[in-house]
Amino acid sequence: SLDAATLLQHIEALGQIGADAVHGGRSRIALTDAEKLGRDQVVAWMTELDLTIQIDEIGNIFGILPDQEGNTQHNALMMGSHIDSVYNAGALDGCYGVLAGLAVTKAFRDQGILPTRPIIVAAFTNEEGVRYQPDMMGSLAHAGGLSALQVLNTIGTDGTRLGDELARIGYHGDMPLGTLKPSQYLELHIEQGPILDKEGIQIGAVANLQGISWQKIYIKGKANHAGTTPMSMRHDAGYAAASIITFLREHTQQSPGTLATVGSIQFEPNAINVIPRAATITVDLRNPDNKSLCTAEQALAEHLDTLRQSEGVTIESEVLARFDPVIFDEQLVNVVEQAANSLSIAHKRMTSGAGHDAQMIARIAPSAMIFVPSKDGISHNPREFTKDEDLIQGAKVLLATVESLLSH
Amino acid sequence: SLDAATLLQHIEALGQIGADAVHGGRSRIALTDAEKLGRDQVVAWMTELDLTIQIDEIGNIFGILPDQEGNTQHNALMMGSHIDSVYNAGALDGCYGVLAGLAVTKAFRDQGILPTRPIIVAAFTNEEGVRYQPDMMGSLAHAGGLSALQVLNTIGTDGTRLGDELARIGYHGDMPLGTLKPSQYLELHIEQGPILDKEGIQIGAVANLQGISWQKIYIKGKANHAGTTPMSMRHDAGYAAASIITFLREHTQQSPGTLATVGSIQFEPNAINVIPRAATITVDLRNPDNKSLCTAEQALAEHLDTLRQSEGVTIESEVLARFDPVIFDEQLVNVVEQAANSLSIAHKRMTSGAGHDAQMIARIAPSAMIFVPSKDGISHNPREFTKDEDLIQGAKVLLATVESLLSH
Ligand SMILES: NC(=O)NCCC(=O)O
Ligand SMILES: NC(=O)NCCC(=O)O
Repeated sequence: SLDAATLLQHIEALGQIGADAVHGGRSRIALTDAEKLGRDQVVAWMTELDLTIQIDEIGNIFGILPDQEGNTQHNALMMGSHIDSVYNAGALDGCYGVLAGLAVTKAFRDQGILPTRPIIVAAFTNEEGVRYQPDMMGSLAHAGGLSALQVLNTIGTDGTRLGDELARIGYHGDMPLGTLKPSQYLELHIEQGPILDKEGIQIGAVANLQGISWQKIYIKGKANHAGTTPMSMRHDAGYAAASIITFLREHTQQSPGTLATVGSIQFEPNAINVIPRAATITVDLRNPDNKSLCTAEQALAEHLDTLRQSEGVTIESEVLARFDPVIFDEQLVNVVEQAANSLSIAHKRMTSGAGHDAQMIARIAPSAMIFVPSKDGISHNPREFTKDEDLIQGAKVLLATVESLLSH
Repeated sequence: SLDAATLLQHIEALGQIGADAVHGGRSRIALTDAEKLGRDQVVAWMTELDLTIQIDEIGNIFGILPDQEGNTQHNALMMGSHIDSVYNAGALDGCYGVLAGLAVTKAFRDQGILPTRPIIVAAFTNEEGVRYQPDMMGSLAHAGGLSALQVLNTIGTDGTRLGDELARIGYHGDMPLGTLKPSQYLELHIEQGPILDKEGIQIGAVANLQGISWQKIYIKGKANHAGTTPMSMRHDAGYAAASIITFLREHTQQSPGTLATVGSIQFEPNAINVIPRAATITVDLRNPDNKSLCTAEQALAEHLDTLRQSEGVTIESEVLARFDPVIFDEQLVNVVEQAANSLSIAHKRMTSGAGHDAQMIARIAPSAMIFVPSKDGISHNPREFTKDEDLIQGAKVLLATVESLLSH
C-alpha cells in the first residue's frame, strides 16, 4: 500500500531546493545549479529504493524496478513527469508525478515483491521550456521528436548551450536517447487549472490535451527622441509589441476557447526618453481544437502584417514550439476511471490546459494522465496548492491503475 | 573668430568616448566609467584654455574665463549643456553646446583679450535622466529645484545611489551647489527634431520649450499558468502594461500636439508560459501647452482606474519628472535672431521638443537657446547627424550672440 507520509515528506524536501526567499516559491530552472541539486535528491531516493538508475545523453533520468525475471525494459510500464520548474514555482508541478511514481515502486519494495512487468519512473529534462525551448523537450526527444544533437545544441534565453549546461551539472548520461521505450505511460499531475477545485471533484481522468503554439516575435523599429519625434513619424517597436498583446486579448474574446499569453518582453534600449528601436516578445497560444489554434496563428500573422504597414517596422517570428492537440488512449483512460471507482473517489473526464510529458510519450506508447485539484486553479505561482488529502488520493489512484495494468 | 577646425575635432574626439561597437553610437550614461572619461576630456580642454575650473558638490563642471578685472562670478554670461548621453547616442546631443562654449572662450584666448564680463562654460550633471530621474537634474538643482542631498540620494534604475557613483568617478566637487548664478544663459543644441532640416533653415531661435511629464507605473497582477488559466480569470500585469501603451497612442491621435512614449518595460517573472505577476513601464508625456499636458495625465489616470477594475490588478504611479512648459527670455531670443541676421543666416522661431538645461536655468536667469538642424529629425540614435557646415554656423551665431551681449 501507499506510504503517504514518505510521499508528502519527499514533496516537501524537493520543494525546498531552489527556494527563492525574495519572490517566494522555488526557481529550479532546467539545468541550473538548483535543478542539479533537485536531480541529486531524486537520484538519492531512487538509490534508497534500490532502483536501477539510467541517465540518457540528454539528462533524462530513469529509475527502474525490474520485473520478477529481472527484465528492465521488456513490456515496461512507465510513470513520469519532471522536476524542473518555472521561476517562483509551486512545489507540485512535475515533482508530484515523479515522486508519486517513486511511491508506487516503494509500495512494491515495502511488500518485498517484484512487479509482473518492469516499472520505470522517469524524470524528463526541461519540461517547462522557460530557459530552453520547446517545452516538454526531454520527453519529446525520448519519443523521437528531436535528436540528441538538436537538444544539446539548443541555445537558451540566457545564451547558454544546453549541452554545456548539462555537462556542467554532471547529467550528460551514457544511455542513448530513446532506449527505454515503454508499453504504457501514466502521468499523475496537479490540474494547474480551476475545474476540479471549483467542482469539488478529487480526480481528473485526462482524456485529451490542448494544442500549444509558441512563437518568439522580433520587432525592429527606429530609435528616436521621445520629445522631438512627431507621433506620425514614429517607428516604435515597443508600441508594435504592445499592440500585439492587446490584439491577442481581443482575438481570444472573439474566439472562446483560445488562450493567448505574452509572458515575456524586452525593449531596446529600454530608456525612458528613447522610442524603442527593438522589441521582442513571446506568444503562447493554446486551444484543444487544432483548427481554432490555426485560426489564432493566422490572425496573429495578419496583425503582424498590419503593423509592418502601419508602424513601418520589420517583424520576424520564430516558432519555438508547435504541438497538435493530443487524445489520450481510451482504454488507459478507462482503467484510470475504474481505479478511481474501485477506491470510491469522485472523478471526471477532462482536458489538460498545460502541456505535459505524457503529450510527447503518447507518440510512442498508449498514455494517460491523472489530475488532482489545484486550489483556485493557481499554478506557476508560489501559491500553487493542493491539499495533502488530495495528493494522497491521486497517488492511490495511480497505484491502483498500475496494479490493474500489471494484473492483465 | 571661431576656430571651427578645433570645434569639429573636439566633437569627434569626445564622440569616441563610450563608443558601443555592437549597437552603434556611444553610451555615456551619467556617472558611469565612460562618462567619467568624457568629463576628464572636457576638463583637460578647459585646462588647455586656462579656464578656472570649478566642480560643485553634485558634479556640475564649470570652466570660467574671468573678465578684464579678474572677476569670475559677477554679472557672468553662462553657456552650457551636458556631456552625458542616452544609450547608443549620437555625438552631438549636449556635447555640441559644451564644446561650442569652449570654442567661444577659445576665440577670446586666440585674440589674447579678456571679455567685459566673466564667461562660464557649464557641463551639467545627468541631463538625459536615463539612469537617474528626473532629467536635467544638474541644472535643475543648480537653479534651486533640488537640494544637493536630494540629488546625491537619488537611486538609479540600476539600483545605484547617485552620490556613490559621483564619488566613485571622482567628481564630487567642493563648490557648494548653486554658487555660480549667471546673469544670462545661452544653450546651443541640435534640434533633435525634423523641422529645420525639413524647411532647410540653418538656425532655430528657440522661443519656448514644451512641458514634460515622466511617470513610472508599477502594475501588480497574479502569476498563473498560461495553459490552464481561462482568459476571464486572469490578472495579467503584462496585458495591463500593453493596454496603457496602446491607450496612450490613441490619446495622442485625439489630442494632436501631445507626445506619448513608453520607452522602457519590465515583466516579472518574464517567462513564456507564466502570466506576468508584475509589470513596470515608464511614461513620457509632452506638450507645449500645459493644459493639454494635464489632460493627457488625467486621461492616463482614468485609464489606470479602468484597468484596476477590468483586469483586477493594482497599479501605482510615481512622478519621475514634471516640468511645466517654459517661455524663454524675449530680449535674449531677439539678440539670437539679430546675431543670425548679422551673419546673414536664415533662422526661425521655434519650440523645443526635447528638455534642456536652459529650461531649468530659465528659473534663475534670462535664457535662450539656439538650434541647428538634425538630419531627418533623428536623435537618441547612433544615426543622429548634423552637417559640419551647420555645426559651424551654429557656433558662429553663439559667438555673435555672446559678443553682442558683452558689448551692451
Ligand atoms: N505542466 C506544465 O506546467 N508544463 C509546462 C509547459 C506548459 O504547458 O507551458
Ligand atoms: N536634449 C535631450 O535629449 N534631453 C534629454 C531630456 C529629454 O528627454 O528631453
